[in-house]
Amino acid sequence: MKENIFIAQPADGEAINSITARAGVFSEEEVSCVAEIWDEYLVHGAEGCGYHFLVFREGGRALGFASYGFRDLTDGVYDLFWIATDSETRRGGVGRKLLSATEAEIRKLGGRIVIAETSGTAPYDGTRKFYESMGYRADAVIKDFYRANDDLFIYVKRL
Amino acid sequence: MKENIFIAQPADGEAINSITARAGVFSEEEVSCVAEIWDEYLVHGAEGCGYHFLVFREGGRALGFASYGFRDLTDGVYDLFWIATDSETRRGGVGRKLLSATEAEIRKLGGRIVIAETSGTAPYDGTRKFYESMGYRADAVIKDFYRANDDLFIYVKRL
Repeated sequence: MKENIFIAQPADGEAINSITARAGVFSEEEVSCVAEIWDEYLVHGAEGCGYHFLVFREGGRALGFASYGFRDLTDGVYDLFWIATDSETRRGGVGRKLLSATEAEIRKLGGRIVIAETSGTAPYDGTRKFYESMGYRADAVIKDFYRANDDLFIYVKRL
Repeated sequence: MKENIFIAQPADGEAINSITARAGVFSEEEVSCVAEIWDEYLVHGAEGCGYHFLVFREGGRALGFASYGFRDLTDGVYDLFWIATDSETRRGGVGRKLLSATEAEIRKLGGRIVIAETSGTAPYDGTRKFYESMGYRADAVIKDFYRANDDLFIYVKRL
């Protein structure tokens, strides 16, 4: 794998949970959701639980992570569940490197399509621009999905 | 609940698995998927596993079923995972009654939106027409999603 990118190990858990907690855009419920799938990953492994985790690690500490997994009943569709970088290290290209590495891993697994779902609200403006700059296209928007005035954007990248 | 509609009980399992196996449109993998979530429902219950099951029962036998569940991290979005009726009793309105009852249950749970994902291929022409006739709108189409030439249609109904 590319420089600084590793398959997440148990010792990365603390940094991962800290990154989501401090990201600023995630609700308490979303932070708990990441913690839950991380726990499943620790217990059952990526193959067993369906959640893969990659980290960008520097000086022994994870500065960002991505989580992805196969969408059941499809031929080669993978969901990007979460991607987040340490709030102190933004703009360092960590997110781009993580997403590129995630796509490379998905390709190795035979993936054809990556789906990234995100919110249409202002706090996610940067996230949507990030996906667009990485070659993702918003193939679908479902109005008021998450809640009133919070649309679902479904970004699609064909590998 | 309306006439003939019941919360699925363990004794309905055989009929449910037989309905999916004989439906004609489901792959072996999809038939197994229904069997797996049914097993989870038996062991953990709808609250524990997130999969609710309703059946249309007549003369003690399930002639159709619907499975639905809450979409995590949303305010009131429910997915219709599966709906199928016995291949010998089609056109008897069983599907319409099941879907109406499912929507009523979702409304009771505080649901605002029902999502039904289906395929754009010819064998699903009837399914798409069925959703459209029930007030669902294809808010999104993702090309070649399930596999090449098999698009994902995301039907949305706002309750």
